[in-house]
Amino acid sequence: MATVLRPRPAAFADVQIDMAHGAGGKASRRLVEGLIAPLLGVCGPLADAAPLVLGDVGIAITTDSFVVRPLRFPGGSIGELAVNGTVNDLAVSGAVPAALVCSLILEAGTRTEVLQDEMRAMGDAARRAGIAVVGGDTKVVEHGKADGLYITTTGVGRMDPRAGLSASAVRPGDRILVTGHIGDHGITVLLARGDIDLDAGLRSDTRSVYPFADALLETAGSKVRWMRDPTRGGLATSLNELARDCGLGVVLDEESVPVRDEVRGACELLGLDPLHIANEGQLVAVVGADVADQALDALRRVPGGEAAAIVGRISVTSPRTVVAVASYGGARVVDMLVGDPLPRIC
Amino acid sequence: MATVLRPRPAAFADVQIDMAHGAGGKASRRLVEGLIAPLLGVCGPLADAAPLVLGDVGIAITTDSFVVRPLRFPGGSIGELAVNGTVNDLAVSGAVPAALVCSLILEAGTRTEVLQDEMRAMGDAARRAGIAVVGGDTKVVEHGKADGLYITTTGVGRMDPRAGLSASAVRPGDRILVTGHIGDHGITVLLARGDIDLDAGLRSDTRSVYPFADALLETAGSKVRWMRDPTRGGLATSLNELARDCGLGVVLDEESVPVRDEVRGACELLGLDPLHIANEGQLVAVVGADVADQALDALRRVPGGEAAAIVGRISVTSPRTVVAVASYGGARVVDMLVGDPLPRIC
Repeated sequence: MATVLRPRPAAFADVQIDMAHGAGGKASRRLVEGLIAPLLGVCGPLADAAPLVLGDVGIAITTDSFVVRPLRFPGGSIGELAVNGTVNDLAVSGAVPAALVCSLILEAGTRTEVLQDEMRAMGDAARRAGIAVVGGDTKVVEHGKADGLYITTTGVGRMDPRAGLSASAVRPGDRILVTGHIGDHGITVLLARGDIDLDAGLRSDTRSVYPFADALLETAGSKVRWMRDPTRGGLATSLNELARDCGLGVVLDEESVPVRDEVRGACELLGLDPLHIANEGQLVAVVGADVADQALDALRRVPGGEAAAIVGRISVTSPRTVVAVASYGGARVVDMLVGDPLPRIC
Repeated sequence: MATVLRPRPAAFADVQIDMAHGAGGKASRRLVEGLIAPLLGVCGPLADAAPLVLGDVGIAITTDSFVVRPLRFPGGSIGELAVNGTVNDLAVSGAVPAALVCSLILEAGTRTEVLQDEMRAMGDAARRAGIAVVGGDTKVVEHGKADGLYITTTGVGRMDPRAGLSASAVRPGDRILVTGHIGDHGITVLLARGDIDLDAGLRSDTRSVYPFADALLETAGSKVRWMRDPTRGGLATSLNELARDCGLGVVLDEESVPVRDEVRGACELLGLDPLHIANEGQLVAVVGADVADQALDALRRVPGGEAAAIVGRISVTSPRTVVAVASYGGARVVDMLVGDPLPRIC
């Protein structure tokens, strides 16, 4: 649920569905905004999670299907992703993850131990993230009509009273923070497919980012304006959505974005931009300038947040655009992901 | 989510996943209870929907994946099923359906108009059922890794204060009611595949059963003991779950179960039992004997409930067993569905 419904959606004119429509970038946005959301009659803007009031309790709900290939990769697996991905959508929406349901689509012929491993991975991830698994469903399709297993998780949480997140609260001068190295997940999965002869020793970053959201809200409260987990489409796509939604410019100090050498190297070899590579355990946030340093300290104190960094700021110049600047003075416009260089990354 | 977690689950010893594991009968139960639920650490019994308390509000949450083949059939389509199926799981759990999220897995190469038709069907079904669609997700897999589209819907609703449903509240003498003809959906979908040369003029019964649940609760309040929508595995499987969960016997007056001649005829030809055929718009309920007639009247007054009937009663004889009796005095034990005669029926 990483797309945002706009007032004037671009029409969806493609005659068939292609891999790019699932990549989380421009094509996905066109499909969701130009076809799916209007026909479904989706109420309100689509964000990482949808707000909902039941009785007088504000809750958030989010759903995601996981189709990653291969099922297991260094640092994680589809089951772990399916839990963490949904926990993270709740966390960046300002909700406290509470409960999760999961629905499985199994391919006939899948070995029981494959399923067993993933159910165990889900159970472990849920315990680590502190979310209760309360129910599920299982369907089986014929051999050749799926790819081992697909997992859909839906999470609900209570809105955190400390949170007052809104793109419209973003102000010029606000700072942009990320919690760690970007691109690890996407490049790890790509290399795990074995199509490219490269061993970078990388691991997926899959984890719950709730501890980071919690630390930010505890430190900066309502001065945390906006949070997102930059999955499909990477940091570039999340920041473009931010720029579009707040109507301001995003100035990215590209050299301060934490990127491992192995990820940078693989991207150079493959003609990819690390800013477009999926993450599964990072959070990007906008906070008021006056609390940015404390917020950064708070992120760095969270285990696994040692590489957190301030990577940019909000500007009145170049509205609705992401501009990456370099220390030597160069600047380039950073677009959303176009096409799908990394299919089925989550 | 039509399975029920028991204290002593049967071990799951099969080495691979087969179609029967998704059929909703005995094999599904073994997979869920013997492997999935324990490893996921699922809290509490699995029913059609899981209860959850957020703040001081009681809510229900349910999730289901839909993989029906073909995507469209007389009387409905996958999109309509995906909405009604989830609405119905909430309704029979004693919840008032409030909001729904949907996650799509699309096969690359699927024509846009196929997706368009299903999104429109979902939107229409949601409006008819009075449930808000609040968000979703879209993934795309390669051609040959899915079958057009799979839809997972998750619904949440508020627990209805009129409802006090529990299998343990079921008492000897209680009556069993169904809302209409059984087996229409399963046989319609089977015939729509064109494998069998038979044109029965049947239509799927897919619809929201919430109006029936509402009518029962309004009429009989807490004397409505138990409700279920008999989907995969049919009425027989739901009643076996009831017998098992309440520890009493279910006596089914087989001649009073509404079955269309066309469904009966097709079942005879195919060697199937109408009691095992999936329904997508029926509700089966247990109510106190003293309110059974008023409850039946209430069901019949709901548009589409004209064929509602009292079909059986709860007995102390044959505990944990479903026995079908005939007017000539014959009786037979009705088991849960075994195997999968009708794969991918929802």
